[in-house]
Amino acid sequence: MDERITLSHGGGGRATNRLVNELFWPAFDNALLAQGNDQAIMGVPQGRIAMTTDSFVVKPLVFPGGDIGSLAVYGTVNDLAMGGAQPFCLAAAFIMEEGLAMATLRDVVASMAQAARRCGVPIVTGDTKVVEHGKGDGLFITTTGLGLVPQDVQLDAGNCRPGDAIILSGSIGDHGMAILAQREHLGFETTLRSDSAPLHELVAVMLRAAPTLRCLRDPTRGGLAATLNELAHASCVGMHIQEQAIPVHEAVRSACELLGLEAVHVANEGKLVAICPPQEAEGLLAAMRAHPLGSQAAWIGTVVEDSACWVSMATTLGGERLIDWLSGEQLPRIC
Amino acid sequence: MDERITLSHGGGGRATNRLVNELFWPAFDNALLAQGNDQAIMGVPQGRIAMTTDSFVVKPLVFPGGDIGSLAVYGTVNDLAMGGAQPFCLAAAFIMEEGLAMATLRDVVASMAQAARRCGVPIVTGDTKVVEHGKGDGLFITTTGLGLVPQDVQLDAGNCRPGDAIILSGSIGDHGMAILAQREHLGFETTLRSDSAPLHELVAVMLRAAPTLRCLRDPTRGGLAATLNELAHASCVGMHIQEQAIPVHEAVRSACELLGLEAVHVANEGKLVAICPPQEAEGLLAAMRAHPLGSQAAWIGTVVEDSACWVSMATTLGGERLIDWLSGEQLPRIC
Repeated sequence: MDERITLSHGGGGRATNRLVNELFWPAFDNALLAQGNDQAIMGVPQGRIAMTTDSFVVKPLVFPGGDIGSLAVYGTVNDLAMGGAQPFCLAAAFIMEEGLAMATLRDVVASMAQAARRCGVPIVTGDTKVVEHGKGDGLFITTTGLGLVPQDVQLDAGNCRPGDAIILSGSIGDHGMAILAQREHLGFETTLRSDSAPLHELVAVMLRAAPTLRCLRDPTRGGLAATLNELAHASCVGMHIQEQAIPVHEAVRSACELLGLEAVHVANEGKLVAICPPQEAEGLLAAMRAHPLGSQAAWIGTVVEDSACWVSMATTLGGERLIDWLSGEQLPRIC
Repeated sequence: MDERITLSHGGGGRATNRLVNELFWPAFDNALLAQGNDQAIMGVPQGRIAMTTDSFVVKPLVFPGGDIGSLAVYGTVNDLAMGGAQPFCLAAAFIMEEGLAMATLRDVVASMAQAARRCGVPIVTGDTKVVEHGKGDGLFITTTGLGLVPQDVQLDAGNCRPGDAIILSGSIGDHGMAILAQREHLGFETTLRSDSAPLHELVAVMLRAAPTLRCLRDPTRGGLAATLNELAHASCVGMHIQEQAIPVHEAVRSACELLGLEAVHVANEGKLVAICPPQEAEGLLAAMRAHPLGSQAAWIGTVVEDSACWVSMATTLGGERLIDWLSGEQLPRIC
């Protein structure tokens, strides 16, 4: 096969055909993809499905703790899981820049296939496009997921009630800082690793432990700050959190200080925020801590009455301050 | 709102939030999107669903007869329709280049919303990302569609049998030539128009007229030649077509001659190829011709026995030649 992606790989002719048949199909190998039509057709049980889509434009394509391929699977699986859905299938669309090394593409596709197998979710249909050199940036992947929502699950950002517990599944800022350190050669490369991971099994455990869970969100772009603000606005409540309850790895803390960033604004890819009635919080925490992806789970704050929907934080220094959305862009192309 | 897209529109913070709330949501306006979670949750009837995904990277963003927004809807609706599915919902992911004019984005989104309404299919979830100036090309859109497949429909590229009729729904080459003429300023701009259109209603009519239809394909990238070769290989048969039976607009024919292209290799966005048992062909043609998008439908050839899976054409000059896939790329970024 060619050493680099050329425009002819996107033409729909013989080269596209070879690329699909020799690289994508063997890696993603499953019966639905092998139907070989322009669409995958599958039976679904009656009930509710969840659908989510995300374009991944992360730079660099490979980073400590992950790569664009596994990130594209886990990110989409997580968006399904945040609705309480178990992943059912994925679609993947690739926009490749002319000149992309075939070896890089092969590695990313292999990683993607492995991530999909880890989640037990087949990649059932896809698309490949090529843009001219200088009109893309190596590789963008758009992943769309379908999930099945159990009958009794009703998670919604608008469900938060004053008095509810705010639970965080683990340390924050790992993904964003790993990317940034790698990209800017900050010298933290050895200690910072992305937390990219699939959360659907943790969520399944949580739904059993706390049947009246209000909602789940994964604090990706915009970090914990954006997630809490979104939930506060969706539910017309305030959120009050304790800085000292929030797990932050030492290397992330140091990198944040160096760069003048706050960990609450830095992206995560393997963490979630859960809101639940206070009487269910301890049981939920215990269940989460028994799962490898929730071992550092912490009760970080409380939903409060506040028609202005502010998010505030008691700092480790004893102060109190508002936690707003970032107004500009500090960390482009983090996912 | 800002006049141009900036990196902060992709940061997941306040600017992203405003863009989504003020531009995308009002345009796509529907109850599932308004759930405002990271995934849309909907009830589905028991049965089979079709899923398809496509990235659209067409250049220019607006062209005679369409734009990237309506193309992204119709292209995905058509990939569902080719499986016999009626469109159920869409997801849309936008990769925007820093500097994209907000007015252009607004027009494309409005066109996309109108196209979705025309098809009766809601855009239920989405994503927006921004890449730096020079790392994209204005706008790429990835659309993923779900459709419902009627119980008795069994369309498959592997179903073609020797003796089957090859039916084409109308003229070929219109989309590819409209794009190319616009891009290269060929001077055909006034007469060439893309055929971009949604085919699901035509397909519904066809399924009623020919219940034993073997398969459907829309000859997009790679044109009629690629589609017939794909079907031939999937079914291990040959295809024999008559050049003079294939409708080609005069302006497309002239542009092809000027550029040294063949109409069978040029992309279409509102046409389909149907394979059906010969005894159903006349009834199918009559039904297609009664629909505005099938008024020029033609019986262009026959499936033949051929273990080498060749596609051949009797030319208007009385010759016979093989119709192969394009080996290189003559028409980049046509969709």
